[in-house]
Amino acid sequence: MKPAIVLFSGGLDSTTCLALARKDGFTPIALSFRYGQRHSFEVENAAMLAKSFDVEHVIVDIDLAAFGGSALVDETIAVPKHSSVDEIDRGIPVTYVPARNTIFLSFAVALAEVRNANDIFIGVNAIDYSGYPDCRPEFIAAFMQMANLATRKGVEGDNLIIHAPLMSLSKAEIVKLGVSLGIDYAQTHSCYDPTENGACGKCDACWLRAQGFEQAGIADPTIYAATPE
Amino acid sequence: MKPAIVLFSGGLDSTTCLALARKDGFTPIALSFRYGQRHSFEVENAAMLAKSFDVEHVIVDIDLAAFGGSALVDETIAVPKHSSVDEIDRGIPVTYVPARNTIFLSFAVALAEVRNANDIFIGVNAIDYSGYPDCRPEFIAAFMQMANLATRKGVEGDNLIIHAPLMSLSKAEIVKLGVSLGIDYAQTHSCYDPTENGACGKCDACWLRAQGFEQAGIADPTIYAATPE
Repeated sequence: MKPAIVLFSGGLDSTTCLALARKDGFTPIALSFRYGQRHSFEVENAAMLAKSFDVEHVIVDIDLAAFGGSALVDETIAVPKHSSVDEIDRGIPVTYVPARNTIFLSFAVALAEVRNANDIFIGVNAIDYSGYPDCRPEFIAAFMQMANLATRKGVEGDNLIIHAPLMSLSKAEIVKLGVSLGIDYAQTHSCYDPTENGACGKCDACWLRAQGFEQAGIADPTIYAATPE
Repeated sequence: MKPAIVLFSGGLDSTTCLALARKDGFTPIALSFRYGQRHSFEVENAAMLAKSFDVEHVIVDIDLAAFGGSALVDETIAVPKHSSVDEIDRGIPVTYVPARNTIFLSFAVALAEVRNANDIFIGVNAIDYSGYPDCRPEFIAAFMQMANLATRKGVEGDNLIIHAPLMSLSKAEIVKLGVSLGIDYAQTHSCYDPTENGACGKCDACWLRAQGFEQAGIADPTIYAATPE
């Protein structure tokens, strides 16, 4: 079995990515980050999910909160809440964490090199998250080219491939795909601002998730503090 | 004054880079990492140097040691010692830290975005460190292209420039340049495996540093436990 590094937050997208990597014949090594995100239970949830998938889970501590500049790491910037899915900002939202995917992928490249893996999976998506510059196909292509110049493997002619299999899928298509792979989405977590009573139901991530289940015609198993509808 | 992020280890190269950035009219923000390097006093030395340059110093904690795979972060891999400069391995040495410059530059991109800086300085050099894939000009060019696709600034047309002003200089030329900029190299630190009695005098970094001073015809102010000669 070939090892593959899978960037893994325990959300809907990255969990689908993990299941896909395994279906494609890889032995996934899930890679998560404690990066000062306000929803810190994300990492514990990811650990629980990785265990249920029976895959190795590597957690790296990095301090993005020291930089600030995003609602996801800075308590002084509010996570935007909406009363309908149409209110989502289609520009670059304040939940964008500067260079986050660049940093995450860089660590994935390091781990791939140490573990002798030629494959990295990332669950980015250019359909629903059109506002995030580091979720676009041209970013992934440029990163892959750079990574193959940066590393011992690249120099030795062993090409590193960055897989972004969800890139052009809608959230509804991702949900359908995941269900066909046997994922229990009740265990996955997307909310940017979870409460003790469940997902907030009002942030971008909650709206897009809820819309995905609705458009897929699949019952949404998420527990929301306030149901998005 | 325009801000510039300067990757800063407090070594000979990055200190020269910091002085150059300031000479070029930038207000440097020095960026260092505690990454599990065995020579951990590197960061304290960098802090002291940044203070003497009167520049802001940002230190980020990241756990590269968790990955292992390099003599610089893994206590079980010995730092190679040589009895002459000609013994230095011209392939990729075991002191290569997988994807280190990729990771460091990724954090620099994040900090640049948060601080509204368009310029990043890195003291890589393709002459003396020919074995490190992430010190080559083609790597820096590919990283810059990727970074401009990854970020809000790039999307908004504000190009990020990665400066690698030492790329094609010999160590002797770097030393001469730094002395002309008023750097006191006694304060800088290069050794991969420093002892209580000073730099080891036998690792790649010590040999290249000593050879640089010798070829520049400038007295080497470094305190060595064993003088490389």
